[in-house]
Amino acid sequence: MSGTYATPQDAEDAFYDALEEGDLDGLMAVWSEDDDISCLLPMYPLIRGRKDVEDVFKHLFSHGQGVALSVSHLDWIESGDIAIHHVEETLQQVPPGKPPPPPFYGTNIYRKQHAGWRLLAHLNAPTPQPQGQGG
Amino acid sequence: MSGTYATPQDAEDAFYDALEEGDLDGLMAVWSEDDDISCLLPMYPLIRGRKDVEDVFKHLFSHGQGVALSVSHLDWIESGDIAIHHVEETLQQVPPGKPPPPPFYGTNIYRKQHAGWRLLAHLNAPTPQPQGQGG
Repeated sequence: MSGTYATPQDAEDAFYDALEEGDLDGLMAVWSEDDDISCLLPMYPLIRGRKDVEDVFKHLFSHGQGVALSVSHLDWIESGDIAIHHVEETLQQVPPGKPPPPPFYGTNIYRKQHAGWRLLAHLNAPTPQPQGQGG
Repeated sequence: MSGTYATPQDAEDAFYDALEEGDLDGLMAVWSEDDDISCLLPMYPLIRGRKDVEDVFKHLFSHGQGVALSVSHLDWIESGDIAIHHVEETLQQVPPGKPPPPPFYGTNIYRKQHAGWRLLAHLNAPTPQPQGQGG
């Protein structure tokens, strides 16, 4: 598992592929090798450091499957060795008879290192519920 | 309103001070002058660009007051000209008789520019509700 990504998008594709496949090694290969990584998943506390990040995805994958998300890009910013991607993540597998949950925002921050681009932070936040509110 | 901040923390202090004071000019002086800024407030859609960011805070301040938050630092990462601060924000003013709302996570991303450090992104996400869940 080399984990060499020529662009932030390559790293992002590898991240969501590994998430879908429930591939823990593949997922950890996308994260920065340094320990200053951070991860905020829906309904979880903020997690920092490779060990705790690995533990939370191990727990997520412990039901024997990954998490398939369809990802649409909202915005990206590149500034030197940092890239920030704002995406919208929609769960692909919904239990039969249940309404699809609203999408989540995802912010992925990548850092360029000697081994290419790696994930530094993955942060989720809910999208607002449509309520037809007037301004 | 010069908006020259020698450190990311100086910019952060100015941001939360302006938020508390309802000082729109002070708040906008902290944001990067470039248009690649992004802001995700609780219950709002992701907002991009100076004009839309200014509009949302103008709306927030339109009730004639600011938003006082107590801010505790969880983590920070500096990488070249980028600094990422993870904080927890707790609302200071709670209407009488109401329970205090749970804190929010805030991720503030700063970029060093010719005029010093400026805010590039301010992103909120809910903290998980304590539920005593077992693993």
